[in-house]
Amino acid sequence: MWGRANRSVCLLGQFKLIQTMKQEIPDRHRFLNHQTVLTHLQIHTYIHVPMKQLVSSSMTTMSEGEWILLDFMPSMFGSRVRIALEEKGINYEYREEDLPQKSALLLRTNPVHEKIPVLIHNGQPICESLNILEYIDDVHSTPHPLLPSDAYGKARARFWADFIDKKLQVSGMKVAWYKSKQELEEGKKEVMDCLELLEEELGQQPYFGGEAFGYLDVVLGGFCSWFYAYEAFGNISIGKNCPNVMAWAKRCMDRPSFSKSLMEPEKLIDFVVNTRKKGGLD
Amino acid sequence: MWGRANRSVCLLGQFKLIQTMKQEIPDRHRFLNHQTVLTHLQIHTYIHVPMKQLVSSSMTTMSEGEWILLDFMPSMFGSRVRIALEEKGINYEYREEDLPQKSALLLRTNPVHEKIPVLIHNGQPICESLNILEYIDDVHSTPHPLLPSDAYGKARARFWADFIDKKLQVSGMKVAWYKSKQELEEGKKEVMDCLELLEEELGQQPYFGGEAFGYLDVVLGGFCSWFYAYEAFGNISIGKNCPNVMAWAKRCMDRPSFSKSLMEPEKLIDFVVNTRKKGGLD
Repeated sequence: MWGRANRSVCLLGQFKLIQTMKQEIPDRHRFLNHQTVLTHLQIHTYIHVPMKQLVSSSMTTMSEGEWILLDFMPSMFGSRVRIALEEKGINYEYREEDLPQKSALLLRTNPVHEKIPVLIHNGQPICESLNILEYIDDVHSTPHPLLPSDAYGKARARFWADFIDKKLQVSGMKVAWYKSKQELEEGKKEVMDCLELLEEELGQQPYFGGEAFGYLDVVLGGFCSWFYAYEAFGNISIGKNCPNVMAWAKRCMDRPSFSKSLMEPEKLIDFVVNTRKKGGLD
Repeated sequence: MWGRANRSVCLLGQFKLIQTMKQEIPDRHRFLNHQTVLTHLQIHTYIHVPMKQLVSSSMTTMSEGEWILLDFMPSMFGSRVRIALEEKGINYEYREEDLPQKSALLLRTNPVHEKIPVLIHNGQPICESLNILEYIDDVHSTPHPLLPSDAYGKARARFWADFIDKKLQVSGMKVAWYKSKQELEEGKKEVMDCLELLEEELGQQPYFGGEAFGYLDVVLGGFCSWFYAYEAFGNISIGKNCPNVMAWAKRCMDRPSFSKSLMEPEKLIDFVVNTRKKGGLD
C-alpha cells in the first residue's frame, strides 16, 4: 500500500493498478500465486468498478464490490481480519501467500512493509491489520459496528488493541520462536503479565466491550489458537491465572466467524514445531 | 490509563480517580509536579463534572469540560497532541512531567506504559498519542475534522501515521541518541529512507491530505523541530532529497498551533546535547 512501487495508485486511484494488473494477467506465474485463479468475471469486476461506487457516501454501497485478502493462515494479524470479515458477512476471496516467495501483488500493494495481511477492496489496498479493521467497520457498519459508539469507549478499545500488538505479540514471539532458554523464560513471564492485565480489563464480562462481541474481541481473537501454542511451548497454564480470558477464548472459538477463520490449535502447534525444525531452532 | 493500578477507574468511571485526587491534593509534592498549581476552581471542576456530560452524545457537550495534558516538551508524541488541541481551539492545562520522577498522576493514569502524553478529559485518561488524536477528533469536530471524511482516506492517513511511529521515530532515535558511529550511520540512512517515502506521499500538495491541513500533518508535525536535530546530529540535509517535506515543515511551523506547541529547534538541539552529556553518551 502506497510507496515508491505504487505511487501511481496514490495519484490516480485504482485505475493505474488495474491497468498494471490487466497487463500482467497473461503472465499468471508472475502476477498470481499458485493458489489463485482469477476468473474472467473477476477481471471484469476489477476493471469496471464504477468510480461512483468508490466515492459514494452510502455505507451500503461502499461495502459492496470485490474484497480480496492476501494472508497467511497462521498469522494472528490475518486471523483477526478474517474474523472481522466473517462477522460482517462480507464475501471475500482468500489468497494464501507463500511467504518465502511473496506474490508480486503483495509486494505491489504493500511495498512499504511487504507484509500480510493486505485487504484489497475494489482494487484499493489497505495494510496493517488494525487499520484494516477500522476500514471494514467504517464501510460496513452492518450487522453492527465493532467499535464502541462513544469516544471514550473507542479510545479504550484502541488503547488495548495497541497494547496487544506492542506487548503481547512481541512476548508471544519469544515463546514460540525462542532461541535460548533465557528468551523463553522472559517470553513466558511477559505473556502472562500481558494476559493478566487483559484478565483485569475483561473482568466478568462475556466480551471486552461488555455484553456484545466487538472490536477488541476481534483484535485479541486472532491470538486464540496461539494461546494453546504459548501453553505448549512455554509449559504454562493460561487458565490458572487468567480463567476469564481462557473462558472468553473458548466462548469466541464457538462462534462460526472463529471456526471459519482460525487455524486449529493442534495444526498451529504442528506448524510451529515444523518451522522451528526447518529453521534450525530445535 | 487502565490497568492494575487504576482498575477502579475502569469500574466506576471517573469518581474513584477524583476521590483519590481529592485525598492527595493536600500533599502537593506527591500529587503535583513543581510546575503545576491546581486552583480551587479546578478542584471544584474535577469533583463536580456532571456524569450527564460524560455520557452525552452531543459532540459540543462532549468536548467541553476540563482538559489536562501530562507531557514533556521535547516529545514529538506530546507535541502532536498540543498541535491538535491548538488547532481545535481547546483550552487545556499543560503539566510538564519531570521524567526521572514521574508524577503520581502520570503513574496512575497510564500504569501500563507509564509514559507521556496522557490527556485527561473530565477525569478520564486517554493514552498513546495517535489514540489521543482520534479521541480529540471524535469529541471536538470543530472547526473541522482532522481525519479525512472517506474511509479510504482515513485508512491511508492511519497507515502513514503508524509508519511514522514504527519507522521514522525509531530511526530518529538512533540519530539523536546513538551509542556508536555504526548506529548513527544506520539511523541517518533509515531516517532519509523514511522521509523519502513521505516526500512521495506528500508530492506537490501543501498538506498531506491535500489543500487542507489535517490528521497526518498533525502526526508528522510533532517531528518538525526534530528534523533540525536529525540534520545537526546526522550532518545531513533533509531538504536536499526531500524538498517538499522541508517546505511542508516550514509551512506548518508558520501556523500558530505549531509555534505555540513545538520546542524551538535550537532549544531542542541544546536539550539533546545536554542530555547526551549527562547520560555519558558524549
